[in-house]
Amino acid sequence: MPNRDRPGLSRRAWLAAATGTAASGLALTRLDALKAAPFQEAPPQLPDPTRVPGRFVSELGRRATGEQPRRLLRTLALSSSSRTPLHELQGTITPSDLHFERHHAGVPEILAEDHELLVHGMVDRPMVFRMADLRRYPQASRICFIECSGNGGGAYSRSRMPTSITAQQLDGLLSTSEWTGVMLSTILREVGVRPGASWILAEGRDAAVMARSVPLDKAMDDAMLAYGQNGEAIRPEQGYPVRLLLPGWEGNAMVKWLRRIEVSDRPTMTRDETSRYTDPLKDGTARQFSFVMDAKSVITFPSYPYVLPERGWWEIEGLAWTGRGRITQVEVSTDGGRSWTAAALQQPVLPKSTVRFRHLWNWDGRETVILSRATDETGYVQPTVQQLWDARGEGTSYHHNHQRAWKVAADGTVTFGLGDLL
Amino acid sequence: MPNRDRPGLSRRAWLAAATGTAASGLALTRLDALKAAPFQEAPPQLPDPTRVPGRFVSELGRRATGEQPRRLLRTLALSSSSRTPLHELQGTITPSDLHFERHHAGVPEILAEDHELLVHGMVDRPMVFRMADLRRYPQASRICFIECSGNGGGAYSRSRMPTSITAQQLDGLLSTSEWTGVMLSTILREVGVRPGASWILAEGRDAAVMARSVPLDKAMDDAMLAYGQNGEAIRPEQGYPVRLLLPGWEGNAMVKWLRRIEVSDRPTMTRDETSRYTDPLKDGTARQFSFVMDAKSVITFPSYPYVLPERGWWEIEGLAWTGRGRITQVEVSTDGGRSWTAAALQQPVLPKSTVRFRHLWNWDGRETVILSRATDETGYVQPTVQQLWDARGEGTSYHHNHQRAWKVAADGTVTFGLGDLL
Repeated sequence: MPNRDRPGLSRRAWLAAATGTAASGLALTRLDALKAAPFQEAPPQLPDPTRVPGRFVSELGRRATGEQPRRLLRTLALSSSSRTPLHELQGTITPSDLHFERHHAGVPEILAEDHELLVHGMVDRPMVFRMADLRRYPQASRICFIECSGNGGGAYSRSRMPTSITAQQLDGLLSTSEWTGVMLSTILREVGVRPGASWILAEGRDAAVMARSVPLDKAMDDAMLAYGQNGEAIRPEQGYPVRLLLPGWEGNAMVKWLRRIEVSDRPTMTRDETSRYTDPLKDGTARQFSFVMDAKSVITFPSYPYVLPERGWWEIEGLAWTGRGRITQVEVSTDGGRSWTAAALQQPVLPKSTVRFRHLWNWDGRETVILSRATDETGYVQPTVQQLWDARGEGTSYHHNHQRAWKVAADGTVTFGLGDLL
Repeated sequence: MPNRDRPGLSRRAWLAAATGTAASGLALTRLDALKAAPFQEAPPQLPDPTRVPGRFVSELGRRATGEQPRRLLRTLALSSSSRTPLHELQGTITPSDLHFERHHAGVPEILAEDHELLVHGMVDRPMVFRMADLRRYPQASRICFIECSGNGGGAYSRSRMPTSITAQQLDGLLSTSEWTGVMLSTILREVGVRPGASWILAEGRDAAVMARSVPLDKAMDDAMLAYGQNGEAIRPEQGYPVRLLLPGWEGNAMVKWLRRIEVSDRPTMTRDETSRYTDPLKDGTARQFSFVMDAKSVITFPSYPYVLPERGWWEIEGLAWTGRGRITQVEVSTDGGRSWTAAALQQPVLPKSTVRFRHLWNWDGRETVILSRATDETGYVQPTVQQLWDARGEGTSYHHNHQRAWKVAADGTVTFGLGDLL
């Protein structure tokens, strides 16, 4: 990168080198800025690591001192959730112990050795699969996101539009993993789906016995019985020993702790898809089977509660994703939505995966509102909240994929800024 | 998959379904087979998970009961290593706490806040970068493997060819991560490399002050200053807060805990690249700067100490990788190398990354030796150990990329089988 493009950055670093002093105070960014917000403390003193032997090898590694990302918990009796710290992550993969959770009756304790999956209904050969059986079929892997359809609901109500909400609180019901397993189509061919079948029912082995209907087309397309996550066995919170993976669709349909698949010729209309996960519209009707997660994006830096310590060059960073294939463009506005500029998409840009976008911004030190909007390969553009209200009303609890906004005040403090635009 | 292709599998599962009994004993595979080898015990009794609430959400997830992959430790005073359990993993990504370790003086304790990287030598503007500075430059991510150049040395000596060695012991100095950071070319353009420069020196901040020379061409190509690993901060064992990443090259050159880069017009000939990491040849000369990891593959299932409990259909599975770009083919032999068949490559097939291959094998129950050999996009084919001995002699300690083999005995026990072919 030529110096002329980023005078602020190179000047500061050069000054640090020339004077031999650390550029602390001038070079605060991201976590530094976040940590600086509530308090300042002297860094602990450690010995010169070139003068003392380090610690030996270990069977399991651990995070560095000072690196303590955590999920954010929300417990409503048995029905609870925890959210991924999106603002602290980088790249594509969500570490498995930070993958968001959402379950209706807690995480069941299941041993792989005694788990069985029954596949029956409109099939030629009803079969029970143990995990050892599933593992003998050809394996597949893919990187994709899982998102709870309730994600983003914290900033949809006109009367309760927040200002002090973090990216983790707002959109942390979103995580991305490399999933490994057997394609559901392989198993459905093994049992032989009968003519006339058009849906499946997927049922979980948790205390909620979560059950959802899924069209057979999706089941035969890219659906997977996933038993692996990020290189190892799927985590208990994600459905150990096996979950249904429906790339790009709402998380609740990807039934965890999967114990039964029934092939049928109609949706089963379970409690879980009528009492929940159906979207009331403003005309009194409802959308049912709103499976696909539409294009969405969120700026993770700067976001609340970061503080920009100085004007000058900052790299706006965020995540974009769509259940309809690839993200083709993310635009960023740094003037409250009046003008938009295409952001750079960071590789890898995988279909039905989170994609990281980046945009260099020379902040002039004045108050403004920054936004992002994603476009996917179908041409769909992430709508404004007003467009979503116009289309669906304000009473829907799911699929809040409207544009998010952050207000940067003149003192560098950042708050959620959607309310400032209404 | 049509039934006729895999009669053994579908028949067994069908029987289980028809009789209502679990197919245990018949359907042992992988971990089940491994666990069955030393002892058999009754599975612990757990309550029906649909009848009891599960555990609540947690700030950090943990592995399932019974899933306990571990690194294998080898400590030689200060110089030590730990190896990734390749045979227990799946997909592409190595979980960060299972990434292999190799260090000459332990893992230093470093705080990101007080770490500095000096870039100097044949440059226009020598500069010191703090982590906060590095994080303001455009970020990049890529998935690639890191392998110690000593990997596989446990099965190279003709006189000490092992039989009871696991894939983890043999090839576990190999891991794959999504790395995130700033391209080294970005930083080198910032400081301005002077005409005539052709090498860099990279120096670490550990007690070994590990230092390696790297050609400037590589530094300006795909080298990265990596501060992120699998979505979060790089782990201490991998160089926290920043390491040099040289995709496809030997691990020791990817200096960890990076504190200094000096641009020069020649290699520095450090202790670490003359006393080690130079390969003696049989004619008395030596190869120096053998940076690139050539194409290699290893079967991870079946491998020692797995036991195949029955003849019939098994899926041979393994890893292939090359530092020269993409793996284009992996062939498998199930008859000691007389005939070879192309294996399926599991997506994603990324350059300079481990790639998983799979081959369905109908084992007839007779003793045999199975092998794999990888081909990369340059046309290079993984050699036999005899070819490697012919080319380099038996006295070299690095770059042992010869074909690996496993002997499957008539009773299903699996041992390392290269010695059986000599």
